[in-house]
Amino acid sequence: MAEALFDRIALIGLGHIGSSLARVVKREGLAGHIAGAAPTEATRRKSMEIGFVDSVHADPAEAVDGADLVVICSPISTYAGIAEAIAPNLKPGAIVSDVGSVKQAVIRDLKPRLPAGVHLVPAHPVAGTEHSGPEAGFAELFEGRWAILTPEDGTDPAAVDQVAELWRRSGMMIERMDAAHHDLVLGITSHVPHLIAYTLVLTATELEEHLKGEAIKFSAGGFRDFTRIAGSNPIMWRDIFLNNQEAVLEALGRFTEDLTALQRAIRRGQGKILEDMFTSTRAIRRGVIEAGQDQPEEEKRRDH
Amino acid sequence: MAEALFDRIALIGLGHIGSSLARVVKREGLAGHIAGAAPTEATRRKSMEIGFVDSVHADPAEAVDGADLVVICSPISTYAGIAEAIAPNLKPGAIVSDVGSVKQAVIRDLKPRLPAGVHLVPAHPVAGTEHSGPEAGFAELFEGRWAILTPEDGTDPAAVDQVAELWRRSGMMIERMDAAHHDLVLGITSHVPHLIAYTLVLTATELEEHLKGEAIKFSAGGFRDFTRIAGSNPIMWRDIFLNNQEAVLEALGRFTEDLTALQRAIRRGQGKILEDMFTSTRAIRRGVIEAGQDQPEEEKRRDH
Repeated sequence: MAEALFDRIALIGLGHIGSSLARVVKREGLAGHIAGAAPTEATRRKSMEIGFVDSVHADPAEAVDGADLVVICSPISTYAGIAEAIAPNLKPGAIVSDVGSVKQAVIRDLKPRLPAGVHLVPAHPVAGTEHSGPEAGFAELFEGRWAILTPEDGTDPAAVDQVAELWRRSGMMIERMDAAHHDLVLGITSHVPHLIAYTLVLTATELEEHLKGEAIKFSAGGFRDFTRIAGSNPIMWRDIFLNNQEAVLEALGRFTEDLTALQRAIRRGQGKILEDMFTSTRAIRRGVIEAGQDQPEEEKRRDH
Repeated sequence: MAEALFDRIALIGLGHIGSSLARVVKREGLAGHIAGAAPTEATRRKSMEIGFVDSVHADPAEAVDGADLVVICSPISTYAGIAEAIAPNLKPGAIVSDVGSVKQAVIRDLKPRLPAGVHLVPAHPVAGTEHSGPEAGFAELFEGRWAILTPEDGTDPAAVDQVAELWRRSGMMIERMDAAHHDLVLGITSHVPHLIAYTLVLTATELEEHLKGEAIKFSAGGFRDFTRIAGSNPIMWRDIFLNNQEAVLEALGRFTEDLTALQRAIRRGQGKILEDMFTSTRAIRRGVIEAGQDQPEEEKRRDH
């Protein structure tokens, strides 16, 4: 077992991502003690039962007591309240990080609420499945994926290195960028895809009963993959869209333009335009395969 | 081995679907002889090498000689030409079927070109992956999925039964409906999802070089699944959109309305509306899981 990186880690939120992180921290021996905070009793009990935490707490302030590293793993809308609750109990020199899918809003909500001497290192491990809850986590989730760190200029390099090392030992590759750039890139690669998937499933939801039944029955024609993405946690995604408005609306504008062009080509029967457009997308697909980002997260679990 | 259903089957087109059908026909012993037609020499050679056909032919007319069943497994735009080529050589009483993803256009292109005494039973096995070509086929592709048959009223029931039995023995469940209804349902569950996926990947294709690289790198956030769908055969999909214009444009109109509503909710910061919409889609997701349509085609292959 490798040397522990932290004496005590506190994970605020024990859902899909929090519990996956706990599992890999335990497996790799990265912390002397893993404290987990969750608002519901059922999650706390389940987490102790599965055994990926050493202690559970209803109160996040109690969980962070004495922690070297605090990782917030809950929906973005809870961050400000959590920061206020934990601030008085944070150990001087402690690192506060998170796993949120937007980063400018996270800095906006956390930074002004943290005491001096505490290091804020926002992070986003780009991995996940459509499942929620502590049972849905697994230690292999992060393998071969990218963790994006978005600390502000002037952040203590040692603190940044420690967070990078946590994710590296969890199997991730590390990238550092500023929060605004992160939100732009994830807007197009993650937020808008989810919005589109939610929309298409919503369109199907509004069909008459018999058509809806058929949409489900014949979903292997493509619809199935959209229902999977649209099965993701509604609260988490509500928070992402509310907190990355600008980038999402901008990316959505580009998407709508392209959709209109394709729609027109179909209406006019312009086969050559359609064929060229469908062919031009293949380079991106090849890029995804070459970058090793094609294997779904859950398959990694099965491979072990 | 079960009793053969046909003395001789001719498959016109040996790509992903044609070669998968050939494989399962061979495995299950459903035909005394499997003749395959393909326009390119490489496909013909590869098909004989892999061994899922008993004979290969450059000329479809030669392949159908003496066949009880002919299944057209090529892009929709080739149907009229194939029908004209094979018509003089079709055996009296032969059945002509296909695997195309639109059905009204198929009847329009085939019916007037087939001689009297030949039975037209259009079919659509709703299964597939994003891969193309004879190497991409596998016998398990159809298992647990639906085959939709769209024969016109008055079609010989024995011919319809034989095509149904072919797909049943290939592992599929059978549904019969009229061609117009098929095109409407598949428009929303398959054609529009593909169009949207192509569009989103097209939007990413137009990004500046460095953003494009990042879109690929961080594609595990959702984009990856769209690139997979958008990796499908450009010719096949061009033909589908050109031949199901009306249903696709109608479904796209509904989708665009819903997208506009979500866009407005994001712009206005209406969290409750977003949350309700994202929650309402969960019933459809559950339906897909309960209907056993969630497992990707390629996993079935690995399970064997």
